[in-house]
Amino acid sequence: MAEAKVLSGAGLRGQVAGQTALSTVGQAGAGLTYRGYDVRDLAKHAEFEEVAYLLLYGELPSKAEVNDYKRKLKGLRDLPQALKEVLERIPRDTHPMDVMRTGCSMLGTLEPELTFDTQQDKTDRLLALFPAIMCYWYRFSHHGVRIACNSDEDTLGGHFLQLLHGKKPSELHVKVMNVSLILYAEHEFNASTFTARVCASTLSDLYSCVTAAIGSLRGPLHGGANEAAMALIERFQSPQEATAELLQMLERKDKIMGFGHAIYKESDPRNEVIKGWAKQLADEAGDTVLYPVSEAIDKTMWEQKKLFPNADFYHASAYHFMGIPTELFTPIFVCSRLTGWAAHVFEQRANNRIIRPSAEYVGVEQREYVPIEQR
Amino acid sequence: MAEAKVLSGAGLRGQVAGQTALSTVGQAGAGLTYRGYDVRDLAKHAEFEEVAYLLLYGELPSKAEVNDYKRKLKGLRDLPQALKEVLERIPRDTHPMDVMRTGCSMLGTLEPELTFDTQQDKTDRLLALFPAIMCYWYRFSHHGVRIACNSDEDTLGGHFLQLLHGKKPSELHVKVMNVSLILYAEHEFNASTFTARVCASTLSDLYSCVTAAIGSLRGPLHGGANEAAMALIERFQSPQEATAELLQMLERKDKIMGFGHAIYKESDPRNEVIKGWAKQLADEAGDTVLYPVSEAIDKTMWEQKKLFPNADFYHASAYHFMGIPTELFTPIFVCSRLTGWAAHVFEQRANNRIIRPSAEYVGVEQREYVPIEQR
Repeated sequence: MAEAKVLSGAGLRGQVAGQTALSTVGQAGAGLTYRGYDVRDLAKHAEFEEVAYLLLYGELPSKAEVNDYKRKLKGLRDLPQALKEVLERIPRDTHPMDVMRTGCSMLGTLEPELTFDTQQDKTDRLLALFPAIMCYWYRFSHHGVRIACNSDEDTLGGHFLQLLHGKKPSELHVKVMNVSLILYAEHEFNASTFTARVCASTLSDLYSCVTAAIGSLRGPLHGGANEAAMALIERFQSPQEATAELLQMLERKDKIMGFGHAIYKESDPRNEVIKGWAKQLADEAGDTVLYPVSEAIDKTMWEQKKLFPNADFYHASAYHFMGIPTELFTPIFVCSRLTGWAAHVFEQRANNRIIRPSAEYVGVEQREYVPIEQR
Repeated sequence: MAEAKVLSGAGLRGQVAGQTALSTVGQAGAGLTYRGYDVRDLAKHAEFEEVAYLLLYGELPSKAEVNDYKRKLKGLRDLPQALKEVLERIPRDTHPMDVMRTGCSMLGTLEPELTFDTQQDKTDRLLALFPAIMCYWYRFSHHGVRIACNSDEDTLGGHFLQLLHGKKPSELHVKVMNVSLILYAEHEFNASTFTARVCASTLSDLYSCVTAAIGSLRGPLHGGANEAAMALIERFQSPQEATAELLQMLERKDKIMGFGHAIYKESDPRNEVIKGWAKQLADEAGDTVLYPVSEAIDKTMWEQKKLFPNADFYHASAYHFMGIPTELFTPIFVCSRLTGWAAHVFEQRANNRIIRPSAEYVGVEQREYVPIEQR
């Protein structure tokens, strides 16, 4: 074997592991683009379904196209009976990401992707039905209710809120869900997306790739940051208390979640967007604690550490104001990022070589076998 | 962002993506070593449980240690009732790798890995119970039987054969299963193992990592080669027919599975081992077709293409002679490779940095957002 090339950065940091036409992260002039469009413009003007269509089908849809697409998704929302029966067997105290992972994998046994020609349809089905996996299990395990998995809500975000709360969501909440799903939809070769691409590179099926990606997003270093941010914010009763305690935490070198980013160095372009909406939701809710506490933490982190809030930090309070249980924050991320994962799987398949790096061996030298009687 | 370094090889080929002390593949003097031991010595002298112990606990066990370990595994073989009920809901025509993936993920909801301190125990549990996931589903969906998931068989290989066939396996078959499980146990940064490590690098749980790895192994470019080899061998009634047809297939440039290897350039060290056992099984079975056909294909591939059989090729006939349905070949691979995957997860956790490479952007330039009315 030829001598393998040793890369300097651990975790392949800064190493190009492949090509993509889907997004740019942290490049000059735009913090984050999806197929060339600034994510801030998309979040301001578009519905999530337009962005899903952009990522999965290549271009922003016309009015007629997006209406057709929303109608299609609306017809794909219900769960197969066998999947409901599986979800009913998952214990109440399960990590909801384990529910998403298992639900996705089980669906792959019921509605397999037999040829890659069906990859778009299979993705649309997952997109339409993921909110029901989350909410059916949550409502059954927590409240003993078998919910209907359809709704009249036009958008995926509204549909999710309807399933969760069992009532029609406000226009503001639907708008914020759209914004949130857009902001989380795609982010280049992050760990879960890279997982999906490695899996896709063996020419495995879509469900395997998405199931694998969910498993990676589950990790606390990846998808769990908005939940951790919520746990932090909830601890404090006032901005004064938050500032005082945070200073102590920083002195103790505690890890503060929701700040800084591996790629962004000066700010996370998604933060300004979700922060604005979190403020509106706070005003609507008449909140006088959670948002001011968030701002106090934000201010202190900047003054003390020159660290900026990332996409996750104000997502925590935004979700909270919409009545979403903290443990469902990361599963919402799944409903959104599915679009990016699937688009990367399509890309990998279209120009594939199996992803099989080498390792630097740091173990013991070759040694003689010792028969068991002599050990 | 600093300019990322562009790697030359697609699929990270020949690029070092991390360190391992677990194995060497294709280095001078030894084709394949596990923690320094030549895999041929291990396959000749050891039981699979010794090799699992070596990979998972670091050293070959003493007689007393391996007996304790086998006793422990024997006590962990039965499936939780909820998992059986999930397996009963998976359709008969499902890809068995989807069953393994779903079973592993479901177990993660029933017996979660709450802290990394339990990683060894959780791995032992998976190791002990994977044969039952495969066989319970297979026998229920194909024969309508709810099998008992325990057996008196001392080794994992024997236990699997007992569950599958419902009768005590012969000594020869138990020996060959041990050999096979040893040969497939570990293979450095192959795609499924690398998938497990990327997933582990987010500090996700063991079940997520193994579920993800199963998804990658499912791909026809990775785990499915012994099934494809079987499909090829079964087509021919005689060595003469095999040679004649194979020459035509090569002329048509058909892909012949079970030959050559991404890393090994001259031979696969696992082949000579499994080939010898396949021959013994053929003699035992009084076979006059399958083994001679295999040899004819082997000979023709070398003469025509200078391609050698890899680990998968003679595994096909070996498994077939033991009465194992072709569709279960890759799930057996899971039962074995689990040891390598888990050992790599432990390694990744012990010295972790999140695996997050960069991508080369090949998409459209940044562009202005177009309102939906103008599209």
